[in-house]
Amino acid sequence: MSLTVGRPAPGEVAVTLHPRHSPGLEQAIAAIPGVRLSTPDDGDRVATSLSGAPVLVTFDWEDRFLSPALRWVQAISAGVDQFPIERLGESGVILTSARGAHTPAVAEHALALVMALLRRIGRAVDRSRRREWSLEMATELSGRMVTVLGFGSIGSEIGRVLTLLGANVIGVRRHPQPVDGAAQVVVAPQQLLWALERSSLLVVALPETEQTRSIVGSAELAALGPGWLVNLGRGTAVDEAALVAALVEGELKGAGLDVTATEPLPEESPLWTLDDVIITPHMAWATDRLNQRLVELFEKNLAAYRGESGWVNRIV
Amino acid sequence: MSLTVGRPAPGEVAVTLHPRHSPGLEQAIAAIPGVRLSTPDDGDRVATSLSGAPVLVTFDWEDRFLSPALRWVQAISAGVDQFPIERLGESGVILTSARGAHTPAVAEHALALVMALLRRIGRAVDRSRRREWSLEMATELSGRMVTVLGFGSIGSEIGRVLTLLGANVIGVRRHPQPVDGAAQVVVAPQQLLWALERSSLLVVALPETEQTRSIVGSAELAALGPGWLVNLGRGTAVDEAALVAALVEGELKGAGLDVTATEPLPEESPLWTLDDVIITPHMAWATDRLNQRLVELFEKNLAAYRGESGWVNRIV
Repeated sequence: MSLTVGRPAPGEVAVTLHPRHSPGLEQAIAAIPGVRLSTPDDGDRVATSLSGAPVLVTFDWEDRFLSPALRWVQAISAGVDQFPIERLGESGVILTSARGAHTPAVAEHALALVMALLRRIGRAVDRSRRREWSLEMATELSGRMVTVLGFGSIGSEIGRVLTLLGANVIGVRRHPQPVDGAAQVVVAPQQLLWALERSSLLVVALPETEQTRSIVGSAELAALGPGWLVNLGRGTAVDEAALVAALVEGELKGAGLDVTATEPLPEESPLWTLDDVIITPHMAWATDRLNQRLVELFEKNLAAYRGESGWVNRIV
Repeated sequence: MSLTVGRPAPGEVAVTLHPRHSPGLEQAIAAIPGVRLSTPDDGDRVATSLSGAPVLVTFDWEDRFLSPALRWVQAISAGVDQFPIERLGESGVILTSARGAHTPAVAEHALALVMALLRRIGRAVDRSRRREWSLEMATELSGRMVTVLGFGSIGSEIGRVLTLLGANVIGVRRHPQPVDGAAQVVVAPQQLLWALERSSLLVVALPETEQTRSIVGSAELAALGPGWLVNLGRGTAVDEAALVAALVEGELKGAGLDVTATEPLPEESPLWTLDDVIITPHMAWATDRLNQRLVELFEKNLAAYRGESGWVNRIV
């Protein structure tokens, strides 16, 4: 469905919204004064719409979106590795990320997965469906050591939440710097094994880069030992074969995966049905309050597009 | 298996541990200096053991445990409604509860159930077992109003944790009094409907008394509206027929139940298989750190038994 057709009125900005977006975002953007919104049904129509619209709001990228009319792309993701950043820059197209808009949502999802693993909620659900009443011993978060790998906006918010709840947090990031109230210490990736040897939980909140691919492999899982893994960044950060092996052999107690190396997770993956594995299909970002934060960000950048203020989260 | 037989040496205290206890508690109590521990296999043998042992550590009570030798019962539960308090008092038997020992464990379990409901983890597990990758919209805790019904040691700790995470908490207790950092307001049970009308979540942390039986019925669930219920106290506090009706009709979004009116939950209960219902079989208390807290409490009361200090959590 296309909400609007035709040319924007003077002073209006023509904005195209890619069809893959969170429910309600369309209505929220359409309600912004001065926005003339098109919401095409598919990629073909996005490309057509962009021949006359300078602004694209999108999670996905296809090269045919780079029309001569395009001036600004507002990503609705925190990471922007799906965009051809250099080419956009060369074409004079501004790219802004949604960094920060997802942070509270993803941090709460991390907490949900951590608590579900420690309390064996996945196993409880499985048993419940078989009408089995059988107690399991749980593990308390308070006093546990947790490594948070990737300590940017999202990772440090996860660290802050876990610290509030009494956990001891080691943050890991490329350029370590202390973050008040979010970690006891922040170390470089070279200290990852050192951190894991001391931890019961590993929470991965990394973007996808060359450096992060398979950064968690069998050596890292062995260092973690009988603990739990939560991944919320990109699935490729974890060597999935090593993960399955560690789970099957009982070396790792469980995993909470919001992301997988291939998405959707292929039907043949053993991860679907392993005890104490909880898979949430890349939904950490998808909450009732995301649209509000995305629209606030978009409005700030719309003002920047009109030359009225500075850009927020500008990549190129 | 009985760890010890025969009479305690001079200065030793003969302690009987009921067979229903958390794994590892036996070893932890046996390691206390001056304790001669018996751990009978069943109720019959507990009664026999108590003919010569003045101290019983137990969750369960049977009237035949009231031997002439019995002097002190250390409950390993926070609530003591299973004990004949008056009769123990008349017999000069001291009863101490484990109030406080379970608090951190139960509060973390409440958090696990709350987050699992808001993030639809039950539904995610069900779908995962069918190898379905299908995103669900979640609800953020931060900014939500939560009613915590029962605002004693456990309820106020739940309130503290939820407040730390940005929720707004209304505590409900018989004798309201403000609790710093645990609630925006604490009200009397007469204000329960008022509280629920403002809340998305109801967390029940009540002991079993005449006043609390079925305190949450269809009127309370209707006031809560399209939200979530978590129950960690006693199952009888919730009218289960009303709960099932509200869930089936979609008036309530989901429920996390650590306790049910009858335990184990009867096989024919529809609660076992409803979407967005998570049942954990009365395991909120059962964590890796419970024994440590129980032993600390028991040691303090052992000193009191020896006349060296005052009792902790003495009921009669």
